[in-house]
Amino acid sequence: MRFSRIPEETIWRLPIYLRGLLLTSGQGQKNISSRDLADFVGVNPWQIRKDFSYFGDFGTRGVGYDVGKLTKEIKKILKLNVVQKAALVGVGNLGSAILAYTGFRIYGLDIAVAFDVNPKKVGRKIKNITIENISNLRILKKRKIRLAIMAVPRQAAQGTADALVKAGVKGILNFSPCHIEVPKKIRVITIDIAMDLARLPYYMPAS
Amino acid sequence: MRFSRIPEETIWRLPIYLRGLLLTSGQGQKNISSRDLADFVGVNPWQIRKDFSYFGDFGTRGVGYDVGKLTKEIKKILKLNVVQKAALVGVGNLGSAILAYTGFRIYGLDIAVAFDVNPKKVGRKIKNITIENISNLRILKKRKIRLAIMAVPRQAAQGTADALVKAGVKGILNFSPCHIEVPKKIRVITIDIAMDLARLPYYMPAS
Repeated sequence: MRFSRIPEETIWRLPIYLRGLLLTSGQGQKNISSRDLADFVGVNPWQIRKDFSYFGDFGTRGVGYDVGKLTKEIKKILKLNVVQKAALVGVGNLGSAILAYTGFRIYGLDIAVAFDVNPKKVGRKIKNITIENISNLRILKKRKIRLAIMAVPRQAAQGTADALVKAGVKGILNFSPCHIEVPKKIRVITIDIAMDLARLPYYMPAS
Repeated sequence: MRFSRIPEETIWRLPIYLRGLLLTSGQGQKNISSRDLADFVGVNPWQIRKDFSYFGDFGTRGVGYDVGKLTKEIKKILKLNVVQKAALVGVGNLGSAILAYTGFRIYGLDIAVAFDVNPKKVGRKIKNITIENISNLRILKKRKIRLAIMAVPRQAAQGTADALVKAGVKGILNFSPCHIEVPKKIRVITIDIAMDLARLPYYMPAS
């Protein structure tokens, strides 16, 4: 594979750069130095140069990186050069907040369908998305949706993950604060809101 | 400072290890090898050994790390050895989900107060927390609360951050998908749900 030597951590940072580049090009900027991009996204300039060196040469000394070219290349690597459809499972408070969130589009991500277990919610429409019954997960295969966001209670997490895998989902963004078991080929990213908050006290000055 | 040589990225990973250790000790385990901890938390064993080497020697060859000692030390470094109180600003869908979230306690984090701008919400109680009027942010200083979670609409983000800083807050977890300007001494972590979803397609097999 062409990009097989790119380290995991570089891949992890690429969306951070992509976001910075998209916002930069939105302001009409054609070139950006690694230093300016670094300031903008909060990563060291040397780290940025090292990360970009894995997939070609986009910088010109004194001119900086070509924002357009670099954006296109990062999108291609991350497979965000096509619209990626995702399903949301669980339309409670968190799920509703996710449906209302407008930040997906800049990455070419599209929440195309939502599911809930509550019959009172099934059939309702939120932002043009009709909430489907969770028992209909099989429609994901037909619609070729392979990404899912899980916003279900902890006790429902493993069962939901099993059902999603069965429905052909290959990547899961899990908001339940628990470990879920999936086959090796399935990628899971678990978000723990509390863990991010736990990172802040370290930086607090002594009171 | 004692820990001044610990790199940012190590600090960033410590809560990941802490979570793994807390879950491990909850199962009654006294020792853990870097390999087992690595499998559990999804970080390379060599990275774990390197990270731990910055703040002392907790491992014994063949026995592994002392779970209790290591947990205590990481908590101390992260200033999680005392209860850290936090405020929530914005009790919409996302804010309500955050209030209902049970994952804060294992880190010693305590959402002690919530604020909203909507008079209909002010005075309501969610999980023993009475929602205060956003105009009362000054109570944070009195109550020595220096951490805040912002779950407000994008257009309210900068104003809210300014008000929080004025009220003595030193660390902000920001859920609005936008950059906020704060004085240099204030630490902000911005959570972009879409960015995490954007990390998944890279790992998808070709369809």
